Amino acid sequence: MQSVQRLVLLGTGLISGSFALALKRARLVKHVVGVGRNIENLERALELGVIDEFSTDAATAVIGADLVLLGTPVGQMGRLMQQIAPNLSPDCVVTDGGSTKQDVCALFCEYLPKQLATCIPGHPIAGSDLSGASAAQFGLYEGRRVVLTPLSQNNAAALEWVRQLWRACGAEVFEMDAAQHDGIFSAVSHAPHLLSFAYMNAVLDRYNADQCLDFAASGFRDFTRIAGSHPDMWRDIALANRDSVLVDLKANAAQLNHLIGLIETCDANALTEYIQRASLARIEWGKPKKGSI
Amino acid sequence: MQSVQRLVLLGTGLISGSFALALKRARLVKHVVGVGRNIENLERALELGVIDEFSTDAATAVIGADLVLLGTPVGQMGRLMQQIAPNLSPDCVVTDGGSTKQDVCALFCEYLPKQLATCIPGHPIAGSDLSGASAAQFGLYEGRRVVLTPLSQNNAAALEWVRQLWRACGAEVFEMDAAQHDGIFSAVSHAPHLLSFAYMNAVLDRYNADQCLDFAASGFRDFTRIAGSHPDMWRDIALANRDSVLVDLKANAAQLNHLIGLIETCDANALTEYIQRASLARIEWGKPKKGSI
Repeated sequence: MQSVQRLVLLGTGLISGSFALALKRARLVKHVVGVGRNIENLERALELGVIDEFSTDAATAVIGADLVLLGTPVGQMGRLMQQIAPNLSPDCVVTDGGSTKQDVCALFCEYLPKQLATCIPGHPIAGSDLSGASAAQFGLYEGRRVVLTPLSQNNAAALEWVRQLWRACGAEVFEMDAAQHDGIFSAVSHAPHLLSFAYMNAVLDRYNADQCLDFAASGFRDFTRIAGSHPDMWRDIALANRDSVLVDLKANAAQLNHLIGLIETCDANALTEYIQRASLARIEWGKPKKGSI
Repeated sequence: MQSVQRLVLLGTGLISGSFALALKRARLVKHVVGVGRNIENLERALELGVIDEFSTDAATAVIGADLVLLGTPVGQMGRLMQQIAPNLSPDCVVTDGGSTKQDVCALFCEYLPKQLATCIPGHPIAGSDLSGASAAQFGLYEGRRVVLTPLSQNNAAALEWVRQLWRACGAEVFEMDAAQHDGIFSAVSHAPHLLSFAYMNAVLDRYNADQCLDFAASGFRDFTRIAGSHPDMWRDIALANRDSVLVDLKANAAQLNHLIGLIETCDANALTEYIQRASLARIEWGKPKKGSI
């Protein structure tokens, strides 16, 4: 398969850095340019061999690139697309690692209208509460899933190339409609993150918050791990996938009110059934199966 | 220190079985009797050396006991206390491992009014989504916390003995008022479990639930681990600690409505601050500190 000559990472962090490392190991990339605003982070990425060169200027960095990966929070992608638009070679493939896809599709259409044949929206499912280039790792995508949400304008060869590159990173590649993607990930990723933030704020608002946190144990630890996630990234996701997220948060508010009602009325049987439904489904989900991490 | 001659476990599972194993390793118990309803589980406990003898009759098992540990869900404790009351020797110490304490204190007062000097309510903080005697393990309490909520009638020597036995299991022992205990654990344990059940039910109610669960990854895994917990145990906790739990669930409903408002109005700055507050607090909590697991 065709290897990448000049890979430009717009945003040099966990997602983009791990992609570069995996391609390097597969000997499928010749030169990697990391773009970012945080010089310390870029120097660290260079030192770790994640990138071969860095730049703080996206527009000049993409000159001569055959593959560009947008690896920033979604809120920064529009501006970056605008900056690089004049300098992209017509056959340069542009892809992204954003957690929401309808908005990224819309940004591609708005800012790179002449490039749509080779703009391939993608979402590698390898979230982590870690961030920054120093979190990048070989093998992050091993056994993980990547969802591509192709545009109708996409060129089949460009799409196939992106598919093959992700497979070379060890990922299983899926394709679906961007709206379908956003609904699914709102339900199983965006909503839990937001619920976890809300829960942490509820604890912090208690008069005895410090004492509560002092006695918090393993249940709390796991339930709130995702509450330690990056504020800018998750603000962007909440706003970018606003419609789906609101549907799920409202469904959760309704569930919570229903549960409050069962406890208020001491309806022991209904409460048992309610918990049992959740518990059985979670136990079933946790059984080993293909493709889940 | 004084060792236990005849320890009776009313309910033979993770909590009580691990207590017995730890005391055996410390050579602080002579004979352990496991009581339960599930013969298979009791046979397994005997086979694993967690107990030395088993019985399905609590009333006769406690004859001659110097220590009784109630290790069942809280909802079964009243009935058990009633059964054992006539056969307890006056100096037998009775303690429990229940996750709620105001209700257990009330049960002691109701069913063992003549024994209150030696009824020591306790809560070992070593929750797990696992259950049954086969989950019992040496060292479960190593570095964990145990909270005792003494009754005003407690005899100082009995309280000190229970304190020492838990310390011999490797635990750090705290004392507090039962109401204070229930407020703290509602906030950091009971509420997150109930929120996790509610979230799972919200996902299950989606038209594309199977597809959502198929794409769920590590964030979902950790957020919902506690949703796999035991329905009877958690129904009992929700009802036993009803007042505190309702306060926390309503506080979470209010947080959720506030968050929905921020997303509906696209208030990016307030949303960033909201997430940041949660994120910073969770990161701070996760830093290594004494006594938390």
